[in-house]
Amino acid sequence: MRDAYVVGAGQTDFGSFPDESYRSLFATAVEHALGSADGLTREDVDEAVVGTLGVGGRQLGLSGPAVTEHAGLSVPTTRVENACAASGYAVRNAVQAVKSGMADVVLAGGYEVMTDASGDATKYWLGVSGETEWERLTGATFAGTYAQMARAYLDEHDDATVEDLSRVAVKNHANGSQNPHAQLQFGCSLEDATEAATVADPLTLYHCCPTTDGAAAVLVASEDVVAESELDAARIAGVGAASDRVGLFERDTYTAIPASERAAEAAYEMAGVGPDDVDFAEVHDCFAIAELLAYEDLGFCGRGEAPELLREGVTDRDGDLPVNVSGGLKSKGHPIGATGAGQIVELWTQLTGRAGDRQLDDPDVGLAHNVGGSGGAAVVTILAAPRSEGQR
Amino acid sequence: MRDAYVVGAGQTDFGSFPDESYRSLFATAVEHALGSADGLTREDVDEAVVGTLGVGGRQLGLSGPAVTEHAGLSVPTTRVENACAASGYAVRNAVQAVKSGMADVVLAGGYEVMTDASGDATKYWLGVSGETEWERLTGATFAGTYAQMARAYLDEHDDATVEDLSRVAVKNHANGSQNPHAQLQFGCSLEDATEAATVADPLTLYHCCPTTDGAAAVLVASEDVVAESELDAARIAGVGAASDRVGLFERDTYTAIPASERAAEAAYEMAGVGPDDVDFAEVHDCFAIAELLAYEDLGFCGRGEAPELLREGVTDRDGDLPVNVSGGLKSKGHPIGATGAGQIVELWTQLTGRAGDRQLDDPDVGLAHNVGGSGGAAVVTILAAPRSEGQR
Repeated sequence: MRDAYVVGAGQTDFGSFPDESYRSLFATAVEHALGSADGLTREDVDEAVVGTLGVGGRQLGLSGPAVTEHAGLSVPTTRVENACAASGYAVRNAVQAVKSGMADVVLAGGYEVMTDASGDATKYWLGVSGETEWERLTGATFAGTYAQMARAYLDEHDDATVEDLSRVAVKNHANGSQNPHAQLQFGCSLEDATEAATVADPLTLYHCCPTTDGAAAVLVASEDVVAESELDAARIAGVGAASDRVGLFERDTYTAIPASERAAEAAYEMAGVGPDDVDFAEVHDCFAIAELLAYEDLGFCGRGEAPELLREGVTDRDGDLPVNVSGGLKSKGHPIGATGAGQIVELWTQLTGRAGDRQLDDPDVGLAHNVGGSGGAAVVTILAAPRSEGQR
Repeated sequence: MRDAYVVGAGQTDFGSFPDESYRSLFATAVEHALGSADGLTREDVDEAVVGTLGVGGRQLGLSGPAVTEHAGLSVPTTRVENACAASGYAVRNAVQAVKSGMADVVLAGGYEVMTDASGDATKYWLGVSGETEWERLTGATFAGTYAQMARAYLDEHDDATVEDLSRVAVKNHANGSQNPHAQLQFGCSLEDATEAATVADPLTLYHCCPTTDGAAAVLVASEDVVAESELDAARIAGVGAASDRVGLFERDTYTAIPASERAAEAAYEMAGVGPDDVDFAEVHDCFAIAELLAYEDLGFCGRGEAPELLREGVTDRDGDLPVNVSGGLKSKGHPIGATGAGQIVELWTQLTGRAGDRQLDDPDVGLAHNVGGSGGAAVVTILAAPRSEGQR
């Protein structure tokens, strides 16, 4: 089947935008994505797949077609909702649409407006993306669920400490402070992160991502479109997805996310590469423990070795395997439906040398890892740089 | 790109099931679908695409993976939400997944539990699948929106009458009374339908579909799987989709659904057939006027000619082009997310000669037409009978 490429990508700033709507944010992301894809116009887009979690608040009304119409696109639009993995899945659907031959150019994106809801409403609303009967209705928030994973991890691995969780925050805040699109553009110290208020023990405020408004969009095109163009095309070498028991309590382990492992395995197999070939990654750090588990689930290190990677700076911006150079969900922000597509925006931006001050040194292979709920769904996407492809 | 086939299909009864959940209903539909696909088991399913509208009531918690896990499937699951066209789009996504080569067997389905909500809650909840700011918030219900279309149609076409709307109800109730899965298994007279209580003038109670619980599932497989099997495989000859302005008031016409026209055009083109080749159809008759518009949007007749088709019995069960032999949304019921997949269940059941008492006489080509909102989204799917394919 023919290859699919990312040929353009854009996003809004992530933050709190009381004067914007989900439609205006999405339209801005589409504008930026089209602006980045030299020569492509709205008329070239065959269909759209958009991801969002929310129904309620300002997000109502057959929202897939509602956002594409506002963005000036008159195309079949599918709305995908897989909790926080909505737009990671949307990109995967776009790949299938292109590879199927039924579309040449697909716009995949996502959006979420979250800051208009009160704290309680947000807690309730987010709760619907996890297990309901036995987790949410018994009082387990998302922070609580990830705190259970963190506690289990610290228990299971004697040398792991709360400071290791804080190292995720320190690194990602340092990265986000270099990203003009990030919501929290400031650094934090190990002490700041560790001694901040407890949200759900052992997780502190700095171990949790913020509540965010934002949108992101990527243009996925066929090899035929790429061949006839001068587009900066990053090949989608692999994409894998997996579901799992929605309730954490129904899984065999609290110290791994099996859906991430299986999604990664599928993506590596499709791409014909392994973890060692990955030059940089955007991983789903909704809570600090999630980034540690991601290192292990994605095969970047063995079980229990994630703290070592952090302590040795391997995943720092200047390390061997930079992770979340965008700032990640922690500092860049986490507008649920926009997050997965936003990760692909960062991959493409880095792989095409457009990342400005935070540009990595000629990466060849980037990986994005997007999780829904507390691991009920996961999707992993691997992109190859145009430059590396030219050399092959 | 390789062809995709429907190789199995099943559904629950449609009705009011206070003792069932969205998970138990979906699991039953999956069981029936697998039971109909001789030799296929859960292990053969590579991924799932599920459609549902609702978040709220009994439907919570990353519901895509939640229903597939309950159905015993451990596969990547994408939840699609395109209002009442959710699972029509889910089937389309399954076709893309199979044609892309990324999956060999995909389960596509949908589900909805609606009868547990109060009347007001249902009105609110359904409202989110239409335009929000200028329709729902100003008091326009869905019945009200379709009533506007009906009024415009009666105004525009002098010879069209309220009785023509009632003819849709009479036909579809007659059909549904022969379908053991239908919610309203009783007939109605032209007088019953015309003189029933007004819901939104000119629409009476009999011109409106009921509120329904239910689930449906179809198995979509590649030509390679079909070639190595004895499966009853109906080729998915064409599938087309389109979006439009979500708000009725923003469209150029009230007497057509342009998204249906464009979706049909795309499906006919892909299938290499035209309206004259269609032997029977399941169309989206959420309100009686919708079935009249569908005849014209799908090209079964010219503008203003739909009443004539009904009066002449062309779309009756024993007519030249039977429409909604299942009973349609009107009598079979309309469990939002399950409706589109349920239409495909009926097509496959008829095309493989499994429809029992309501079996049509050897149809070759069946068409399904599924609309989201008041026409903000539409999807049209064309299936070819195994028998007709063998003859080619």
